[in-house]
Amino acid sequence: MKPFLLTRGLVPENQETPIHFLGGDLTPASYFYRRNHFRYPLLTHESYYIPISGCVRTPTIFSFKDILSLPSKTLNVLLECSGEKRAFFHPKVFGEQWEDGALSQARWKGVPLRTLIEYTGATDKAMEVVVEGYDFGTRTDRPGLFSFARSLPIDKALHPDTLIAYELNGKPIPFKHGYPLRLIVPQWYAMASVKWVKKITLINSHFKGPFQDTDYIYYPHRTNDAGRYPVTTMRVNSTIQQPLNLAVLGQGVHKIRGIAWTGQGIVSRVEISVDNGRTWDNATLHTHPKPYVWVSWTYNWDVHEKGEYTVLSRAIDSAGNMQPKQAEWNRKGYGYNAVSDVKVKIE
Amino acid sequence: MKPFLLTRGLVPENQETPIHFLGGDLTPASYFYRRNHFRYPLLTHESYYIPISGCVRTPTIFSFKDILSLPSKTLNVLLECSGEKRAFFHPKVFGEQWEDGALSQARWKGVPLRTLIEYTGATDKAMEVVVEGYDFGTRTDRPGLFSFARSLPIDKALHPDTLIAYELNGKPIPFKHGYPLRLIVPQWYAMASVKWVKKITLINSHFKGPFQDTDYIYYPHRTNDAGRYPVTTMRVNSTIQQPLNLAVLGQGVHKIRGIAWTGQGIVSRVEISVDNGRTWDNATLHTHPKPYVWVSWTYNWDVHEKGEYTVLSRAIDSAGNMQPKQAEWNRKGYGYNAVSDVKVKIE
Repeated sequence: MKPFLLTRGLVPENQETPIHFLGGDLTPASYFYRRNHFRYPLLTHESYYIPISGCVRTPTIFSFKDILSLPSKTLNVLLECSGEKRAFFHPKVFGEQWEDGALSQARWKGVPLRTLIEYTGATDKAMEVVVEGYDFGTRTDRPGLFSFARSLPIDKALHPDTLIAYELNGKPIPFKHGYPLRLIVPQWYAMASVKWVKKITLINSHFKGPFQDTDYIYYPHRTNDAGRYPVTTMRVNSTIQQPLNLAVLGQGVHKIRGIAWTGQGIVSRVEISVDNGRTWDNATLHTHPKPYVWVSWTYNWDVHEKGEYTVLSRAIDSAGNMQPKQAEWNRKGYGYNAVSDVKVKIE
Repeated sequence: MKPFLLTRGLVPENQETPIHFLGGDLTPASYFYRRNHFRYPLLTHESYYIPISGCVRTPTIFSFKDILSLPSKTLNVLLECSGEKRAFFHPKVFGEQWEDGALSQARWKGVPLRTLIEYTGATDKAMEVVVEGYDFGTRTDRPGLFSFARSLPIDKALHPDTLIAYELNGKPIPFKHGYPLRLIVPQWYAMASVKWVKKITLINSHFKGPFQDTDYIYYPHRTNDAGRYPVTTMRVNSTIQQPLNLAVLGQGVHKIRGIAWTGQGIVSRVEISVDNGRTWDNATLHTHPKPYVWVSWTYNWDVHEKGEYTVLSRAIDSAGNMQPKQAEWNRKGYGYNAVSDVKVKIE
């Protein structure tokens, strides 16, 4: 038996990883979640170039070969869609109804973006680095054609682990995940990790593209934009993979298992409650917590009384963040990270 | 882009049809929903026999060849899991959280069960026909091993369209869907359509197997069994396939499309409301309503005002049944058929 990607939409393609049915620390490419803003781009180039211009001393066009010839770095990095778990918000918010699986983890190999920028040089005025993908199309909220483009503050762009990646799990990045080159921004929600990189521009202002300034903004209010702030770092989070919500189980020992992750530092611990939050106990971590990746955890639950139980998991990170009881509601449904819960019936 | 089956569980395998992303009147075998009670059986027989015994005059063992040599019948029949849409009940009920896709439709070819029973003869005492599959395993609610077995009242068993089928969409039934022989019971929820048929027994009493007498029973109350009654005929129902729930759309004309079906007679009409039930209008039926199959419908919605809308669909059948506003809640979550709804935002 094999699980499948969970389809949320086809044009553009949006499909979740079957996270409840996968183990291991690398998501196979075929199970990596797919999140698109537009139809897939047509890349007809025989050879492939990536220009870097703007606030640089030496505007440069790198060929794919140039990129491959530069010193590479390999990192395991989890990517999480900022809409992950959107379906769990109350009141409901519009948009793709992602559940737990807009989240995958892979081994990425590439060149630090910093290396390329060191090559071109950055002028003192450089404030943000705009990365534009080959994907483009229309939007429902305004007329015209738009490319998917996002900026990073110069410091984040120069972080040595921000990569221009060309491999996923030891192979060329599959087309649907950004072939031939994809930006990988560890610790940020994955809208930052632009696919099919077309060009890079250093600018001396704040980038105002619609995927920067309209989407991927937390709007705390339903009908006005007061208190808005951009989506950046991933929030501390966890998911109970097994048992499934509303499962019926027999009496005995059940292995509760899941994953936990954070965008700041590392996961310090994961706590489990089998009595709907009255008491908490530590889960066993099965991988050593590291930045950029999830930690797998389990908890052996020995249950001999029939009834309905609510099982919770919450992660705490080294920056002192803990999953809240309730997620911070926002109009576009980003950054859901409330304590995870499943109800089960023991019979 | 292709959709995938939506995974609800792997052991046993339970996966939904991506009904929102499919058109057409026959579900391809690869997209046919999978619903199992146990692990898949091991069928190691080189040849395959099906014995009919009990309240019959001539107990008979039919070979697969015998079955193929008898006059066949080909019918398009929709199968719907009685747990279809269980996830939509409030309060929530335990069990597989099926959404809209525990429903598929295929062209089935086989021999009427009646033909086989006419061959063996039925005694006057024959009251029910028990069909047992090769699949078996444990249950959480009692010790022991159980086969999946279900009975039909003798009249339903003798209905000329109740088939022992061996083809699905023109090919041998795929193993996961009951190869080599599957009972097909039109108009009843699909728990009646036993897969991997092993033996058939005519009995002079009410069958009491756990899949007849514990599961597939409507229990209207949470904590007691008062008012229980068995799951049999499908309820009138409809599903809005597009747009998806909580989609964001632009202004203009949108084609609302979906399907409707019933277990009694035919679908007479489908009504759509784009104002959360204040007013209703007829949808256009794109297939001629027939028994046993769904009807495809569309509705052109011309919308030029921004805002949030609740779109509803309800089907009415020739027996006078109409989808209710609220589904009849029951403890095991069967037969959900409330008016279908999607919320959309026009921007």
